[in-house]
Amino acid sequence: MPAARRGRPGYDQRQILEIAVQVFIEHGYDATSVASLAERLGLSKSALYHHYASKERLLELALDEAMGSLEAVLREPGATAGSAGDRLEYVLRGAVRVLVDKLAYVTLLLRVRGNSDVERAALQRRRGFDDQITDMVRAAQAEGTVRADVGAAVATRLLFGMVNSIVEWYRPGGPEGAEALADDVLTIALDGLRTR
Amino acid sequence: MPAARRGRPGYDQRQILEIAVQVFIEHGYDATSVASLAERLGLSKSALYHHYASKERLLELALDEAMGSLEAVLREPGATAGSAGDRLEYVLRGAVRVLVDKLAYVTLLLRVRGNSDVERAALQRRRGFDDQITDMVRAAQAEGTVRADVGAAVATRLLFGMVNSIVEWYRPGGPEGAEALADDVLTIALDGLRTR
Repeated sequence: MPAARRGRPGYDQRQILEIAVQVFIEHGYDATSVASLAERLGLSKSALYHHYASKERLLELALDEAMGSLEAVLREPGATAGSAGDRLEYVLRGAVRVLVDKLAYVTLLLRVRGNSDVERAALQRRRGFDDQITDMVRAAQAEGTVRADVGAAVATRLLFGMVNSIVEWYRPGGPEGAEALADDVLTIALDGLRTR
Repeated sequence: MPAARRGRPGYDQRQILEIAVQVFIEHGYDATSVASLAERLGLSKSALYHHYASKERLLELALDEAMGSLEAVLREPGATAGSAGDRLEYVLRGAVRVLVDKLAYVTLLLRVRGNSDVERAALQRRRGFDDQITDMVRAAQAEGTVRADVGAAVATRLLFGMVNSIVEWYRPGGPEGAEALADDVLTIALDGLRTR
């Protein structure tokens, strides 16, 4: 740490992004001004502009961090090889891990409503991600590992409704870690709560 | 309709509330001014104040409509008599029905972050509702109808994460009606997606 700390005091690029995301979540992106963001960082507006060209650029990078992490799960071997049922399980577990690891970034992503080109591009990427999961559910239904009496698109939305809700209540360092949480999600989603 | 339409033209109390809720959802409650609301309604501000004392009063009534409808499910016979497992199933189905019937009101409720006394009171009521469901899950675990290897509180949060996500994508008049949607939620939540 000392080396990184030496020289000009203050925040590096990454730390500025982290804090901006926190401020966007607390006050809402639209309601946050560059002036209030600079004040929170203890920087002048021009110092902040030295790091990032605009407030929207911060949002764009934050949304890319969230979407990029989710999309990366789809490219991992566990998501590309094996039965569709196993791949779906892998991706659900991976999505829970991303939510926990990038909690603030995904929280911001899930609040996006499409109020600008940057937000609309993020929504478009989310739809592309959802479509890939829906295809996986459909393939798992075709191979017989996932029940076919729930439509693949509705099943995907309900599954990710459950997964995404984690950002509403999960707090890092709480009693339940990411792996235990993923186990719970998979238990309910795949096996259901009912005893038999 | 002719009788109700006779006399002073324009909106009645209920219609004003409905439209206000739509505007709050589209633009955000905090970003909506009484002036913009009055403009959308084609009313003067003073005419709007004749119906409702404040913007916050509209929010309060909207949140009460959503919470009151959810709480009413808990008082129905299906939620108060029978095994805890059956009661839980009844309440989940009832919650989906309320979400579909009162989609805009529940959407607004789920966006509340606690920025005012009215919002904090609504969050408190939501916690009370969640606690009653958690008790029901715990009772179902004790009687052996719901698996005990997922904590009751986490199970409740994940179940309602799935249920509440419906407001993000459900559109009235779409291919899936409320009952079919409730069937899908219960199938995934209770029996799971995996075939066996």
